[in-house]
Formats: sequence, C-alpha cells, structure tokens
Amino acid sequence: SLKSWRDEKRTVAWLHIPITHSRFISLAGNHGFEYHHAEGSMAMMKLWLKTTREDPTPIFGTHQVGVSGVVINEKTEEILVVQDKNRPYTLWKFPGGLSDLGEDIGKTAEREIFEETGIKSEFKSVLSMRQQHNLPGAFGRSDFYIICRMKPLTFEISACVEEIRECKWMHIEDLKREIEVSSLTMRLTDMVEYGLREGWDVVDIGCEEMESIYKGFKFKLYHRPFHKQSGSS
Amino acid sequence: SLKSWRDEKRTVAWLHIPITHSRFISLAGNHGFEYHHAEGSMAMMKLWLKTTREDPTPIFGTHQVGVSGVVINEKTEEILVVQDKNRPYTLWKFPGGLSDLGEDIGKTAEREIFEETGIKSEFKSVLSMRQQHNLPGAFGRSDFYIICRMKPLTFEISACVEEIRECKWMHIEDLKREIEVSSLTMRLTDMVEYGLREGWDVVDIGCEEMESIYKGFKFKLYHRPFHKQSGSS
Repeated sequence: SLKSWRDEKRTVAWLHIPITHSRFISLAGNHGFEYHHAEGSMAMMKLWLKTTREDPTPIFGTHQVGVSGVVINEKTEEILVVQDKNRPYTLWKFPGGLSDLGEDIGKTAEREIFEETGIKSEFKSVLSMRQQHNLPGAFGRSDFYIICRMKPLTFEISACVEEIRECKWMHIEDLKREIEVSSLTMRLTDMVEYGLREGWDVVDIGCEEMESIYKGFKFKLYHRPFHKQSGSS
Repeated sequence: SLKSWRDEKRTVAWLHIPITHSRFISLAGNHGFEYHHAEGSMAMMKLWLKTTREDPTPIFGTHQVGVSGVVINEKTEEILVVQDKNRPYTLWKFPGGLSDLGEDIGKTAEREIFEETGIKSEFKSVLSMRQQHNLPGAFGRSDFYIICRMKPLTFEISACVEEIRECKWMHIEDLKREIEVSSLTMRLTDMVEYGLREGWDVVDIGCEEMESIYKGFKFKLYHRPFHKQSGSS
C-alpha cells in the first residue's frame, strides 16, 4: 500500500501501533517508518512519502513548562520561600513545579504552591519567563519556566514532607541579603521590591481569557495592560 | 531482574529500545512497562516500581512553542502581514511558526519571518504570549504562542510560494479596519498603536541572557524592564 500511496501523491503515512501489536514496529521500520511519538500503550510511527520537499511535520512536544509562584504578603512584605529536599544544594527558592498536560499556568502555580507549602493562593499576573535548553532531566526537551505573582489566601504553612526541607515566610529585606539564592530568585526579589514601591502595574504581565477563531476554543492571553485608543487617530 | 530491583527498593525502571530490537516491546509490556516517549529510531519505556507512592516522573514534552513576529516599520507605521496558503479562511496575520528543538524564541521569529516573507528582522521584545490546549494538529500537546516585536532590517518582500498566499506591508490604520483578522491579531494591532503613540517601553517585555546555577548553562529571561533600587531601603 506504500506504493499506491506514493502513486496517489500522498505526502505522509502514519501508523498507530498499540503495544500489544508492537511486533509490527520492526516491520514498519524496515519500510522506513520512524517513531513520531509514543506514550502509554500507543506508538505513532511516520513515513514522509514526498521526495521533492522536506518533511514539514512538527516534531512532538518540544517543551516542558514549569511554573513557580512568588506569594507576597503585602502587609508584612514577606515572601513564601522553600528549600527542596532532594537537591544537593540548599537554595531558598519560590515554590513551583511542572505543568500537567492541559493545565493553565495560573492553575499550576496555585496547585504546586498548595502541594508544597499548604498555602492557598490566587494568580495575579506573570512576572517573568525563562527559556532554557538541554536542562538535565527534561528528556532532551527544552524548558519554559513561568514565574507568577500570587496573592496569599491563607498563611499557615504545612510543608510537604516528601519534597520540602524547609518552608517559611521571609521578609523581602532578608531575602535580598541571602547569598544562597539563584540569580533568577535575586532578580525576581528586586522586581517584587520595585513593584511594592512603585505599584504592581509597572511589573505585571496581565492575563485575560479570549475566544479562539476555532469555535468553542478559548485561550489565555498574557500581555501588558494598556488603554485602547477610542476611535481612529 | 525486576524482582531484584524491587527488593533493592529502586523506584523506577527504564528501558531504551532501538527500533531494530522492538520485538522486546511486547515482552516489556507484559511486565507492565509503558512508553514514556519515542522518537526517530528509539523508544523509551518505563515501569514505576514503588507501590507506596504515586509516580512523580514528568510526562514527556507537554507543549509545542510557536512564535510570530510583528515587524513594524516605524517611519511609515506599516506592519508586515501574510495570508496562509494552506488554510480554508483568508485571515491577515503576522508571519511565524513553530520553534525547532533548542531554538530561542527570538531566533524562531527571525527565521520564520525570513522563510515566509524574505524580510530580515531583529528581535526587540516580547509583546504577548498565549497558552491554549487541545489545538488541532498538536498531537495532544498544549500550545504556547509567543508574539515578538521585530525591527525590519530589509523591506523587499519575497514570499514563500509553498506557504504564503499573499504578503504585504499594511498601514496600521488599514489593519485596524480589517475584518478578516483574528481577535489576537486585533489585540496586538491595538497594542502596537499604543506603543507607537506612548513609546515601546509601555508594552515591552524585555529579554536578557543570564547564567544558570547549572555551570556552563545560560538562559534567556523575559520580564518588564525595571530600575533596581541602589542599596537597601
């Protein structure tokens, strides 16, 4: 059938192979098929048929997305910080973790903060994002890391015994004097100080839900708040 | 050996299976292994061994990342717009496409703009980002879409015949009157108008390269420009 597909000028052939039928994989491999992706009990194989043009099929999921939350008690000027249990070094950092499939970043922040520290919080804005490649433990995928500004809804800490060595509210002045923080944490601490002084609108990247051109789909859009000009200039 | 691994209290077993040895996949499947991921000629299978704790292994690459560029000729107040060739509808949009593995978003914007329109441009800032789930054609992965502000370095259009139906410089006033644009394009057009009027610093999300705590690694960090307070307050 590969020959007839080529004759029909089809561009690409896909094979969906359940793990129970994985004996067909070598067979497909002999005909030039390769894995496009596989997950759980299913493998998806692909063969590009057109020789006159380069294969434009996107490779599978190029990025993982991590989210952390800077939970700020504005009255006391304290920030929620944690130390990971399973790392060799003892840096103070903001609670966070990887997004589940299909999860909005604000939800990831709220979930991870609660799981790690027992604190309930509310997403306010995005403060920063980081793109990094070749990180250890990412299976060759790149990393997008989004840092959110969060408002605490509770204040009583109950740290996750499996993941967190220590967790506390730290005053921003003490956090600024810490040496055991990453350059990213220090930068964010400076931004939070700036926002506390000048108002959050100078640092915030806002979020809004909008309707997609694909009917029934919605998306979250993040950008600087701005005032639309009324009428034509 | 699975039994001895369990006895040693190992938590997870991994199998790296080349396509030429794919006869072992069903065998591994019978012992409870599942695909973690596969690509090209290699499949990675996983079995979580610890029964007392939930498997914390991250799933593989949850997101694809797309980038588009708003290329603005500030003198003429014109923006570079395209119409896709292979879509049923004829919306004006900004040139762009998916990031290659390991590619910084600014580079994706520059590359895609050049491939689609022949225009050379330079990354200036991020204007907006969108997170969307369950998009068609993303193989079940979520979509991060980053929109960059770009400065044109050349002005002569040479559109890609395979991907682009039409490509032109359109004045921002005409783009604002277009009906054949998405809500995202309209929002960005409003932002660009606002930036042209008030200065780019009111809309820009800046970018800077920083050193990682992982020696030898660098990352790109994106946030609002701000003035660090000198000394302690």
